[in-house]
Amino acid sequence: MRLRTLALLSLLAATLRADEGMWTFDNVPKAKIKAAYGFEPSDAFLDHLRLSSLRFPGATGAFVSAEGLVLTNHHVGLGAVQQVSAKGSDFVKNGFLARTRAEELKIPGYELLLLESYQDVTTAVNAAVKPGMDDKAARTARENELARLQKAEAERTGLTVNPVTLYQGGEYWLYRYKKFTDVRLVMAPEEGIAFFGGDWDNFTWPRHDLDFTLFRVYENGAPHKPAHFLQVSAEGAKAGDLVFASGYPAATARQETFAQMAYARDRQLPLRLKSMARLRDALAAHGKTSEEARRLVGDQLRGLENNLKRQNGWLSGLKDAVAMARIQADEKALKAFVAKDPILAARSGQAWTKIEAATRREAALLKESTFVAARNSNLLVHALNLVRLADETAKPDDKRLNEFKEANLKATKTRLGSPKPLDPGVETALLAANLSEAKDELGAAHPFVQAMLGGKSPQEAAAAAVKGSKLADPAERKRLMEGGAKALADSTDPMLLLAKKLDPLNRKVRKQLEDEVQGVYTNMGGRIAEARFQAYGKTQYPDATFTLRLTYGAIATYPANGTQQQPFTTFAGLFDRAWGQGELAEDGAWALPPRWKSAAGKVELSTPFNFAYAADTTGGNSGSPLVNTKGELVGLNFDSNIEAQVGRYFYDGRTKRSIAVDARAILEALDKVYGAGHLAAELRMK
Amino acid sequence: MRLRTLALLSLLAATLRADEGMWTFDNVPKAKIKAAYGFEPSDAFLDHLRLSSLRFPGATGAFVSAEGLVLTNHHVGLGAVQQVSAKGSDFVKNGFLARTRAEELKIPGYELLLLESYQDVTTAVNAAVKPGMDDKAARTARENELARLQKAEAERTGLTVNPVTLYQGGEYWLYRYKKFTDVRLVMAPEEGIAFFGGDWDNFTWPRHDLDFTLFRVYENGAPHKPAHFLQVSAEGAKAGDLVFASGYPAATARQETFAQMAYARDRQLPLRLKSMARLRDALAAHGKTSEEARRLVGDQLRGLENNLKRQNGWLSGLKDAVAMARIQADEKALKAFVAKDPILAARSGQAWTKIEAATRREAALLKESTFVAARNSNLLVHALNLVRLADETAKPDDKRLNEFKEANLKATKTRLGSPKPLDPGVETALLAANLSEAKDELGAAHPFVQAMLGGKSPQEAAAAAVKGSKLADPAERKRLMEGGAKALADSTDPMLLLAKKLDPLNRKVRKQLEDEVQGVYTNMGGRIAEARFQAYGKTQYPDATFTLRLTYGAIATYPANGTQQQPFTTFAGLFDRAWGQGELAEDGAWALPPRWKSAAGKVELSTPFNFAYAADTTGGNSGSPLVNTKGELVGLNFDSNIEAQVGRYFYDGRTKRSIAVDARAILEALDKVYGAGHLAAELRMK
Repeated sequence: MRLRTLALLSLLAATLRADEGMWTFDNVPKAKIKAAYGFEPSDAFLDHLRLSSLRFPGATGAFVSAEGLVLTNHHVGLGAVQQVSAKGSDFVKNGFLARTRAEELKIPGYELLLLESYQDVTTAVNAAVKPGMDDKAARTARENELARLQKAEAERTGLTVNPVTLYQGGEYWLYRYKKFTDVRLVMAPEEGIAFFGGDWDNFTWPRHDLDFTLFRVYENGAPHKPAHFLQVSAEGAKAGDLVFASGYPAATARQETFAQMAYARDRQLPLRLKSMARLRDALAAHGKTSEEARRLVGDQLRGLENNLKRQNGWLSGLKDAVAMARIQADEKALKAFVAKDPILAARSGQAWTKIEAATRREAALLKESTFVAARNSNLLVHALNLVRLADETAKPDDKRLNEFKEANLKATKTRLGSPKPLDPGVETALLAANLSEAKDELGAAHPFVQAMLGGKSPQEAAAAAVKGSKLADPAERKRLMEGGAKALADSTDPMLLLAKKLDPLNRKVRKQLEDEVQGVYTNMGGRIAEARFQAYGKTQYPDATFTLRLTYGAIATYPANGTQQQPFTTFAGLFDRAWGQGELAEDGAWALPPRWKSAAGKVELSTPFNFAYAADTTGGNSGSPLVNTKGELVGLNFDSNIEAQVGRYFYDGRTKRSIAVDARAILEALDKVYGAGHLAAELRMK
Repeated sequence: MRLRTLALLSLLAATLRADEGMWTFDNVPKAKIKAAYGFEPSDAFLDHLRLSSLRFPGATGAFVSAEGLVLTNHHVGLGAVQQVSAKGSDFVKNGFLARTRAEELKIPGYELLLLESYQDVTTAVNAAVKPGMDDKAARTARENELARLQKAEAERTGLTVNPVTLYQGGEYWLYRYKKFTDVRLVMAPEEGIAFFGGDWDNFTWPRHDLDFTLFRVYENGAPHKPAHFLQVSAEGAKAGDLVFASGYPAATARQETFAQMAYARDRQLPLRLKSMARLRDALAAHGKTSEEARRLVGDQLRGLENNLKRQNGWLSGLKDAVAMARIQADEKALKAFVAKDPILAARSGQAWTKIEAATRREAALLKESTFVAARNSNLLVHALNLVRLADETAKPDDKRLNEFKEANLKATKTRLGSPKPLDPGVETALLAANLSEAKDELGAAHPFVQAMLGGKSPQEAAAAAVKGSKLADPAERKRLMEGGAKALADSTDPMLLLAKKLDPLNRKVRKQLEDEVQGVYTNMGGRIAEARFQAYGKTQYPDATFTLRLTYGAIATYPANGTQQQPFTTFAGLFDRAWGQGELAEDGAWALPPRWKSAAGKVELSTPFNFAYAADTTGGNSGSPLVNTKGELVGLNFDSNIEAQVGRYFYDGRTKRSIAVDARAILEALDKVYGAGHLAAELRMK
């Protein structure tokens, strides 16, 4: 019985893990890929893919023509499209097409990076650590040395050089990028087709989003002729085909221990989801008070719904017993490896126990660390930052609260100076929600609740503070920022008074959390990472760090919603959903843009539109090019399903699917819907 | 806080309940419908719908032309289509179309019923109860009187008269049906389009099934001209439209107490689902031993998967805290009503407590009552029935085991005599699964396990019994059936020997269950039903009893799978799924039949295909006609979503949706795909 269970578990574990990994390009598991698919990517194949790939702000793109055409997602390029929308012409809503090179629109300040080369500097960095240094001092010594090497290399080459830490310190690298600074908008579809189904359809499958935008890179005023670009595949891909995606996955937390994941599952996420749902309900209720209120809370509400959806995805993934058993089995194996080596055991053997103890401490602090805070109230956040600014900036950098450290100070000041208007109604609703939840969760007798409410109800206290405060005015905040301690001391602004009461209470719980929890996670997590790197080295991939990675897998169905999901959708499906939902459903979330309403008769309806594939992507992979085994472009990654969201913690190949626009859909739309045959031809050109 | 929670609960309860109800046609909640939709169905409207509706074996249909054309689901008519499939022409696979009346194929033995009138005989039936009778005697007296009245009425009218018990005995009726015995097949689409997506898509939405078949009723050799038929709507329905469905919902268990539902949720269903999954795995493993084995277990595997899907739906519905809180609140209200009336309190006040105690007893008996049984093994079931047949039939009817009572004896004997071949490999797998699960669940020391295994492993014991048994041969079973006690006593068939050991053990636990659990449920459930009928009378609808009911609601979206579902699908969606899944996925579950492969260019792709609507249907509503407020046919019910399955226990209007074929899809397919314009024209004729 026991053996059978284990055999079943290992079979499932194999399925869980198939095609797992966000691999650095210096360490692609060629043999594993060959064993699974009979295809071994050559160095030339990998270089071609890497040298065609581009780093966008927070995302990915790729060269797709000899004339510097660049493909990424519409939602990646959205800011740029907004930026160049001329007066009276809303390119986000109506789309944009340059019919000639001259019509291509330069995006001021937009920069793309191409990873030209990289260099392992681990030995040099580790040499900076001197005997006797504790964990923190050693970390600082390494960071300083890496920064020094980076600066020297940037000066030497004139390139953009980034310091890169992989495997939580197992490796240190310098990545050298070529930077492109003349980026022009060539073509953008309407948001209504790029983001068809809106936030409702986010993280869902089947999907029908034409989520692409075309830019062109110029150099010296002429289209850049890239050394490498991805040629669009003539025949396209089919179910079962192996595809490769290169891209910039932003962050994962897959090295967390089982205790940390169990804490997230049992304590952190349930409270956070409950709290988000409560805020969502409060904002929705405020939105019902007037049409204007509804408009004002719209963005935040949508953001909350999406966050709820994604983090509910984390939680259901963490509740999967088979996946969690695998995490435990992996951890057990690593512990056994550590136990066998006395030196390693002395250094890392207690790390898991200490982290587990820290999760218990985090659980004990959870409510206070969550609710004794300015959270959600923009005015109270501003007030608290104003109260702290002068004090904090007077301290040495390493003694400051995180948001006042040199690395973050500029961003904090920018937020304080933001000209974005703050609506008193919304602000009252936000602060009231904050206070009423704190009262319910901490109890009316808690010092924070007492201090904030002063005997009033949460609604009264919030209304009074917002009404009496001038902090919604950027000029007033500027005056207080510049006025220093005296201006602060003189002010009787009620929001500032609340912040002054909050300050010591919040500092206390933050310090507890940092000393007793986060510090343990960092130090002990670092030691586990050391042990893991000793045990497995580069047979494993490093956590995502917004550096270029390769992932791969097959276009594939998966079981969901009571059936097997279709691996492809088609243009026919797009029209089915538009017609089946109707124009008016959910404020027109599935309403087709005007030129698409009459497109059903123009396009070949069986053309694939989106597809689902089993690879290991995460946020930052938006815009990742997908290539077949010939290195030809077959798709453009833009999302992943809800089952994929737990990818933050681990990869589950049974149901995790990434979602791509099929390259044939882009060509068909350019040819038949947008009258942009010249661009389709450029994409097809060898 | 408390009040706010209650207010929220009652708001949700209102949503839960909107459009709940399977109403008898004598008691349609006209005022409630008018209040919700501004439309009050007249008596003429209701008569027209009722007198157009037909009872199929286990399902529903309706007259849809002046010439006796009858519409129902393909899966309802499937048996008839199989029955008349000529040699070499598989009408199930290839479809069937009569181009002329002469080509319409009579289905021998097929009968349809039309509910012409009904009569309340409650007073007469209740008069049969004499003072001093206990619950059981009173039940028998009523049953006898109802049977007597039914017989007299049938003789008087020459009609088919059915006795009907509603509200668990709150009302007794005689339903008078006109019977049609000349039913001919007119048109059936291919199963591949009627059941597109196969079992995979069962209970799912969005859906793309052209699940209809056309029959014609003849009388005296000529097409019957019905007094009422449902005219197809020219304009069709749209999202938000109110629709009415008439039909024969088979059975619900909505009067069960909270304790019974909690028992099903916490004990019964978890064990049953675990057990079904285990059997599924065992059969699937056997199916992997050869191609022939795979074929042999196919039907049973699909049945198991569907049952798992449906009962998982029950379980997730029962786990919904909001819905269960409503059940509790309803029960509390009824208990309060009972407590206020001393007579009622004396009779029914203890009923809930007694039922709750019986659920605890049922839980204690659960494993034995489940596993000390012949279940799943066809050979052991046959053997047990053979062992018991002579003994049981010698007893008076009311002392017999249920399957040997006169009402069921014929069916039991038919099963025993079934010529269906039993494969030794499959039978060994089934019996081994039975025994190995019993061993794991009851323990190796349990008398049943000891008796069945006799020291062997489950696999060995099963193999030996199947190998040595001749009971797979229908002739041998016939010999034993007819040979009486002597033949049984002489037989050394090892399966019979197992059955002889099983017999007393199984009788013991069955008797415990009947006396201590089911008897309590019947008697105490009856008393609660009495109280409920006193409290609410006909403001509530009776549980489904395979009698004609009206249900209604709007065509509507619902939240599922992370988004809002589309209320309609279209022909475009059908092709999207066929193209997106591919011909080969899951043994061709989404492969289009040949004439549909080329149909995308022939049909108007935006024509609605299926739709989801919020009404209260269940099994037996298959083939229910859907009419708009003009009484015109707009759709044909054929399924409901997974969220609807908990409708066995309660109605949840937030997410329960019934699923229909759009009438326009039928016309479009007849016109453009099947070349059956003459039938489309007949459907359109006034």
